[in-house]
Amino acid sequence: MSLHNQFLSSLLTEFNPFITTTQVIDWIKERNDVINVSVKKIPFSKLDKWSFDNEKGIIRHDSGKFFTIEGLHVKTNWGKVKEWDQPIINQPEIGYLGIITKEFNGILYFLLQAKIEPGNVNNVQLSPTLQATKSNYSQIHQGKKPLYLEYFQNVINSQILLDQLQSEQGARFLKKRNRNIIIKIDDDIPVYDNFIWVTLGQIKKLITHNNIVNMDTRTVISGIPIDNCVNINLPIYLQDKLLINTFENRMLMSAFDKNASLRSFDEILNWLTSLKCKYELEISTRSLFNLKDWTVTKDCIHHKNNTYFKVIATEIKISNREVQSWTQLLIEPMQVGLIAFIVKIINGISHFLIQAKLECGNFDILEIAPTVQCLTGSYVDSIDLPFLKVVLNANKNQIKFDTLQSEEGGRFYREQNRNLVIEVDEDFPIKVPENYNWVTLSQLNTFLKFNNYLNIQTRSLISAINFI
Amino acid sequence: MSLHNQFLSSLLTEFNPFITTTQVIDWIKERNDVINVSVKKIPFSKLDKWSFDNEKGIIRHDSGKFFTIEGLHVKTNWGKVKEWDQPIINQPEIGYLGIITKEFNGILYFLLQAKIEPGNVNNVQLSPTLQATKSNYSQIHQGKKPLYLEYFQNVINSQILLDQLQSEQGARFLKKRNRNIIIKIDDDIPVYDNFIWVTLGQIKKLITHNNIVNMDTRTVISGIPIDNCVNINLPIYLQDKLLINTFENRMLMSAFDKNASLRSFDEILNWLTSLKCKYELEISTRSLFNLKDWTVTKDCIHHKNNTYFKVIATEIKISNREVQSWTQLLIEPMQVGLIAFIVKIINGISHFLIQAKLECGNFDILEIAPTVQCLTGSYVDSIDLPFLKVVLNANKNQIKFDTLQSEEGGRFYREQNRNLVIEVDEDFPIKVPENYNWVTLSQLNTFLKFNNYLNIQTRSLISAINFI
Repeated sequence: MSLHNQFLSSLLTEFNPFITTTQVIDWIKERNDVINVSVKKIPFSKLDKWSFDNEKGIIRHDSGKFFTIEGLHVKTNWGKVKEWDQPIINQPEIGYLGIITKEFNGILYFLLQAKIEPGNVNNVQLSPTLQATKSNYSQIHQGKKPLYLEYFQNVINSQILLDQLQSEQGARFLKKRNRNIIIKIDDDIPVYDNFIWVTLGQIKKLITHNNIVNMDTRTVISGIPIDNCVNINLPIYLQDKLLINTFENRMLMSAFDKNASLRSFDEILNWLTSLKCKYELEISTRSLFNLKDWTVTKDCIHHKNNTYFKVIATEIKISNREVQSWTQLLIEPMQVGLIAFIVKIINGISHFLIQAKLECGNFDILEIAPTVQCLTGSYVDSIDLPFLKVVLNANKNQIKFDTLQSEEGGRFYREQNRNLVIEVDEDFPIKVPENYNWVTLSQLNTFLKFNNYLNIQTRSLISAINFI
Repeated sequence: MSLHNQFLSSLLTEFNPFITTTQVIDWIKERNDVINVSVKKIPFSKLDKWSFDNEKGIIRHDSGKFFTIEGLHVKTNWGKVKEWDQPIINQPEIGYLGIITKEFNGILYFLLQAKIEPGNVNNVQLSPTLQATKSNYSQIHQGKKPLYLEYFQNVINSQILLDQLQSEQGARFLKKRNRNIIIKIDDDIPVYDNFIWVTLGQIKKLITHNNIVNMDTRTVISGIPIDNCVNINLPIYLQDKLLINTFENRMLMSAFDKNASLRSFDEILNWLTSLKCKYELEISTRSLFNLKDWTVTKDCIHHKNNTYFKVIATEIKISNREVQSWTQLLIEPMQVGLIAFIVKIINGISHFLIQAKLECGNFDILEIAPTVQCLTGSYVDSIDLPFLKVVLNANKNQIKFDTLQSEEGGRFYREQNRNLVIEVDEDFPIKVPENYNWVTLSQLNTFLKFNNYLNIQTRSLISAINFI
């Protein structure tokens, strides 16, 4: 069976003899019940091995590894605010976000972990098989080697199903990227405590629940190619399925059809190039102590209006059978956030309304963002943001997906954002501003193969698109 | 006629009722004869409006625009040298390299300019319609608006045939990119002095001559998509043409065929991702006065071994009907360079042997380079470089292309490099190192659509691939 068909059949399969979807949810709940995670805010001075470098104006680890919190000065001709300062996370290492897959009875299963992350609103969520940076698994940490690391380090080309460099939040991270990788193992693999095998269809179903599937799992599975079927005949059961006009089938058609898009792929690329040439992004580092509108106190770095986010120091205690404790920095959001795609049938095919969005930490000026993205500002205050009203006023029939999803719990303190997909009628009038455009799911999938085109919010929403 | 067919028919047409290819060569020669360009090396202190900023350790223009020469400290785990210093050109502005096209009698013609560039070994070469940076056409320069600029500034989407951000030399420029753009105008256009209309087939033929087509024209035309024909029937005359097994037809097949490549496109992408994760590139700025192994004298910046390149100050005088003169910085190469592709038939289709190459100024760690690229070091000294012997020992039948081509004459002083394409026999044994791979011309064309995959040397060689 071809790679694409292997993904496709797993995508369309929710039946799992090992563990049902309901059992997964109960299992996560149970894991959350038996564990106690306490996150206590502490002064910066109580951090272990982390301290201010007063000369450079950064916060760093004694080893010089992991990441630093730095100050950034930003100048741009994009948007309403042309110049500002802010703290940013600088983590130049490329980390692994890796999932091991294996075929059982002809269906591809994904090995996920029930993982505790201190920043999560609930403590345990489903993470990829491996989440690790070089600092994590090299000597610096003096910890144990992460489970399953050797499968990724010894992988041979024919076992790699997907290998992409994808960005993290451009408003919080300076050009950070992770290696999103899916490998397929034929040999027997030990399944350690807290790990389970699930189908892609189950993961998609689990994403319809609040805060079960973590950001890292969502970004990895968003990259799975389900297009490329243009040259092969669809299996009979799919042809039959597609006769029924449901939202899920419209999504499947939008992922498959390469010939009905409003704009050709080259036109979308040209549009992005012209915007990258029009908009300028000039960044320079600046001491955390000299950031305009930001104050460093003994226990946080905050904006003068207490908006955007705070950098905080925390002490983490995890009690289960044994007690673990450590101190670390976290980013605490000060406002609630929302990301949403508006979807509409054009030329008989569902199209997504994307925007080209500049964020200060972007690797290449602009990335493709959802129709509405207000994560770092409060959307209650941003009511004139394009399309926000359409999204907030959507009726029940138009809302195809509406959940709360967590940002990465290793860096962000209890940050969850509302993820929405809204489908409007074919005759719903939408005036498309210069930096917005309509694309099919197939076109989004093509962008996913290349680095730094779709931002992490777009990928989070794509991961939620369900086909069954 | 579709866009791809328009490019294709121009590519296969050398007949031009306005000016024949021979007449173009004579015309360039004539332009070179009537013009006198003197380039005199002067001390830095005689530069007008350019000076050292001693505190920052850079050379800058009084306006703060154009570009700066800065010092760079490089650390990497790629290649034999793990750490070095060097001067580098920092030019953050994205410039236009733009060509206007127009249809006459059903064939697409390209508007090129016979342009004087002080660094060229010969003075006049064929440049794109427009070569301009923001500094060039904004107030800073106080010069005239570049000819034809308004066509690019007022362009509408449907007129854009190609719009790409492409890199320049990663060993000389810090993350520099240009906007490679081709537009099609239907209205009448004035043809100013020194401008001519030529077909794409003529440009390809002109590239088989030494130093006629400048680097900027070569990079723009390299990006022209001639694949994407997989879903359309080839015109009858092409089907007939392709029956003859010539190198040109093998190239055409390699550009068209999407199904016979040794590796799938996704496999090549995965291979690039894994190398980008393996190799690290850490750069930081350093004062020009504190660069290890480099010395700033009163009239140049040079390496202690007088290798690589020098930064020099020059006074330019151009005498034609009137005399123009100015001073500017140039980079003078200290060694001769060579770039070469090895081509071989695999699975019945011509494949190119590419390497993933790290250069310090790269936008994203690695770019795809030709099989052999020794531009900044002397290839006579690098005889153990992979595949260099194969290239240098190639016999007449194997050499499909061998010319001298100039680097950009606005920045580089008399830099010309040997451009070679070598075709080896199907049974010629080649052991492919980890950072090398085989791809078809169609796969190279796909990479060209996306930013920062093919380096400028690869694009220069692709521009030379001729189909008639």
